[in-house]
Amino acid sequence: MRVLGIDPGIARTGVAVVDGTPGRLTLVDARCLEPIPQTSESGRLAHLLQLVTELIARLAPDVASVEQLFFATNKRTAMRVSEARGVVLCALGARGLEVSEYTPMQVKEAVCGYGGARKPQVARMAAKLLGVPSVPGPDDVSDACAVAICHHHRARLGTLVGGQGVRSAALDAAVARALLAQAPR
Amino acid sequence: MRVLGIDPGIARTGVAVVDGTPGRLTLVDARCLEPIPQTSESGRLAHLLQLVTELIARLAPDVASVEQLFFATNKRTAMRVSEARGVVLCALGARGLEVSEYTPMQVKEAVCGYGGARKPQVARMAAKLLGVPSVPGPDDVSDACAVAICHHHRARLGTLVGGQGVRSAALDAAVARALLAQAPR
Repeated sequence: MRVLGIDPGIARTGVAVVDGTPGRLTLVDARCLEPIPQTSESGRLAHLLQLVTELIARLAPDVASVEQLFFATNKRTAMRVSEARGVVLCALGARGLEVSEYTPMQVKEAVCGYGGARKPQVARMAAKLLGVPSVPGPDDVSDACAVAICHHHRARLGTLVGGQGVRSAALDAAVARALLAQAPR
Repeated sequence: MRVLGIDPGIARTGVAVVDGTPGRLTLVDARCLEPIPQTSESGRLAHLLQLVTELIARLAPDVASVEQLFFATNKRTAMRVSEARGVVLCALGARGLEVSEYTPMQVKEAVCGYGGARKPQVARMAAKLLGVPSVPGPDDVSDACAVAICHHHRARLGTLVGGQGVRSAALDAAVARALLAQAPR
């Protein structure tokens, strides 16, 4: 399964395409989408739509996994990030891609086995799980890798327990730890 | 000048196209865009992009005027509405349209001469300024008319005082009252 992970942001949107199955994940592509700073916000959002649409066409993911906003974010920032999220979701919807959304805590639990993990830990664990020395670029890119890995683990979890509807953080963390233990690297 | 006014929302986005100059405004079109309720939010947002893009192509506005979110809105709602706003701005940006954004208070001041005006007052004043018996449809549509009228008044204000940079609420309200007084109906 080829998962497109996306961490939407105002200036930068992290994207990562992760192939394979848990324990045998490979990083196909990881980068930041940075719309040209325009004089207008609408121009920037139009460019973001174009960049996401081109990425989907080029890398042909099977599904998409998008990080939700941390709820405690400053409201003005939250509104601007949500505008970018809307454009990202729109690009995915236009392509008919199935979209799963995960909170930052769910992503950290799935990747580090601990919902309070910090950014450097997430970046290290993402690289380890993908079998690369390090994830290229800023935090947005490792967050995008992490949200793609999170969906891989969730999908595996769904298969293991016979349904996608499972939303127990404890079970999640337990499965993450089990998958980490069997990771080949 | 042909202004496209937009009041973005989760289920419904009000749109209105208002032609002319203050005192001689005419309503070209006013309606609700209602994306088909899909199983996914991304599908709904993709449909919203399509609806706004078609509207722009059909009615060829010169500029767009978009209502900002009332800042005291519940945060979860604010995030969802902002996603729709992002898609609307993206559609306008893709067409290269100049976009002005106004707070609900600025819109009410421009249309009613009073920032604390209620929805029925806004709807009545919008209809009066547009020379129609009433504005069709729900509040979203009269709000879209009001934000289009607001931009007409602001642009006139800019001409009167020799610049677009004026942002005084008191001056705004004074000009709104003067324009209302000279309205032919």
